[in-house]
Amino acid sequence: MSEKTLAREGIMELVLYIPGESGDENMVKLSSNENALGCSPMAQEAMGKAVSSVNEYPNPTSIEIRKELAKLHGLDAAQIVVSNGCDHILSMVAQAFLDEGEEVVAASPTFAAYATNTLILGGKMVKVPLKEHTHDLEAMAAAITEKTRLVYICNPNNPTGTIVTQQQADAFMEKVPQDCIVVFDEAYFEFSEDSDCASGMKYLREGRNVLVTKTFSKLYGLAGERIGYAMGPVELVNILQRVALPFPVGRVAQAGALAALKDRVFVENTLKSNAEARAFFYESFDKMGITYCPAHGNFIFADLGYPAPEVFERLKQKGYIVRPGHGWGYDTWQRITFGTKEQNEGLMEAIKSVLEEF
Amino acid sequence: MSEKTLAREGIMELVLYIPGESGDENMVKLSSNENALGCSPMAQEAMGKAVSSVNEYPNPTSIEIRKELAKLHGLDAAQIVVSNGCDHILSMVAQAFLDEGEEVVAASPTFAAYATNTLILGGKMVKVPLKEHTHDLEAMAAAITEKTRLVYICNPNNPTGTIVTQQQADAFMEKVPQDCIVVFDEAYFEFSEDSDCASGMKYLREGRNVLVTKTFSKLYGLAGERIGYAMGPVELVNILQRVALPFPVGRVAQAGALAALKDRVFVENTLKSNAEARAFFYESFDKMGITYCPAHGNFIFADLGYPAPEVFERLKQKGYIVRPGHGWGYDTWQRITFGTKEQNEGLMEAIKSVLEEF
Repeated sequence: MSEKTLAREGIMELVLYIPGESGDENMVKLSSNENALGCSPMAQEAMGKAVSSVNEYPNPTSIEIRKELAKLHGLDAAQIVVSNGCDHILSMVAQAFLDEGEEVVAASPTFAAYATNTLILGGKMVKVPLKEHTHDLEAMAAAITEKTRLVYICNPNNPTGTIVTQQQADAFMEKVPQDCIVVFDEAYFEFSEDSDCASGMKYLREGRNVLVTKTFSKLYGLAGERIGYAMGPVELVNILQRVALPFPVGRVAQAGALAALKDRVFVENTLKSNAEARAFFYESFDKMGITYCPAHGNFIFADLGYPAPEVFERLKQKGYIVRPGHGWGYDTWQRITFGTKEQNEGLMEAIKSVLEEF
Repeated sequence: MSEKTLAREGIMELVLYIPGESGDENMVKLSSNENALGCSPMAQEAMGKAVSSVNEYPNPTSIEIRKELAKLHGLDAAQIVVSNGCDHILSMVAQAFLDEGEEVVAASPTFAAYATNTLILGGKMVKVPLKEHTHDLEAMAAAITEKTRLVYICNPNNPTGTIVTQQQADAFMEKVPQDCIVVFDEAYFEFSEDSDCASGMKYLREGRNVLVTKTFSKLYGLAGERIGYAMGPVELVNILQRVALPFPVGRVAQAGALAALKDRVFVENTLKSNAEARAFFYESFDKMGITYCPAHGNFIFADLGYPAPEVFERLKQKGYIVRPGHGWGYDTWQRITFGTKEQNEGLMEAIKSVLEEF
């Protein structure tokens, strides 16, 4: 019996996700947009304690986290669903809303999970190329048809780090039919210092059919524990709950996320460190005449001018792992996660040295 | 816009999963088949250490666990996929193999997730009633049609605790067409002391299209950390990998599961405690003239003779939470998780007292 026959229709055409390389312990890993400062010591302590009760099932809906998030975002806990990373939230969105043959509009390149989950559910992915490395909201609005069920806006965008403004999003939302759900993926939102950075929260408060997704992986430094969440109108969240796993988030992860939400000092330190890293990369790249996108996330997307796989390999030989851009169609670009001051300076020396070798 | 219109077809008809009640800390919770002994101290120690690196993404495929499981089961790591609990493994199975309109055969009652995931993917659930509280494999074989893509055998069965023998499974497998995948859910397999308890591993070794699922929640006491796995022919596992999450299992969970696999002392203690509990319940119920199913798992399913919701409530008032059977169509039965010696004895006193009150 061939794989083709047994697999669900379309499954074998899926392109498998390839995570950023990890290298060994001696490498500086700046490829996966992890938090350079680690995570909150309060979160670590809470997780350490939670380890003693792992034989018991976790709270099914992460109720304590949802209550705390409700306070943070000025929502009701019933408007929030928490799951095993935004990866699983995005899987749930497709399972909950996407019928076979329906269309999903997203930018290209953007976060790969939108397309993966669309294709798994038998939907059709409509990819709208970025314009000047940024979501082309006019073209995306024009791509919406009667069959469009979901639109994804990754803001700031991964991998480019660019943003759409609230004004641009306003104009876009005016064109979106009410039966089309717009998902604002705001995994990196808090890193942007631009007060104009669009948030889906505005449309959520207006009662529109939007979902806003956020993660504990970046700002809170809990990538290793897999916790993400979606916020939306109660009606949409209720539908999402129907495809939820009975116990999506483990006890240790829940304890860590809850404590992390209460540690505003760690969050402030993260944002400060990120802003310093951004300034450092801007200044260094400016001096070197290197083109880069405005870096609204915790990473910078830059054109180092030579073939991405080769630059990647040479940086790796010097102990630094970044994310080469060719898989996204950016053949000479690299996505670089902001590290600590020391890591950033070390990487910059490595980049200078590698570029001189060409 | 109504929920009906926005939700994917069939989603609003789903019955939401209701976990066993937890009660507060003062209650003895024997409702969710958790491990009465906790978990391995080695696993706890490993999890405590893993907390320090949670800002980094976990290994995408739980490679170390898969290598260890491969040794344990005499397989290749490429034959194993690990995810966020068997709940997510079962979601993946439906996503990977089940086309809309295709049929899935399972017993009734059995573990609820088979039906949930079938309905989410638009499949049709064919439920075959248990016969003498046990899978009716002849009727299940007869229920297979050209449209049947998956058959689930929960062995031992949840909630009844009964098993099918290898001989019965042999006869069943002879009737199953090769393009129909049989999933043996062996979450409770190791608790059975019956050497005749059927395992899907036999058919896996014979090259049949079977999947065998197992969990770290029960035997290893890691229900709070959500780790389950499926084993199968490489071709089937490769298809499952296509619908896998990029990072399904967190760092702490991976560390705990890996250490748990190496602590055979804890496993032996668990099995010993379980066998003692089983003997105690058998003896006590025999004396009381209470009917029960052979208890091959870490729980016993018993007919306490009075309406399940009321018996449940009265036991709760005495500090014991069990799982009432009426939701499964067993109106006077309760599913009772084996606790510690002290918990079991206390519960038995409570049961005696409650039954006397009727």
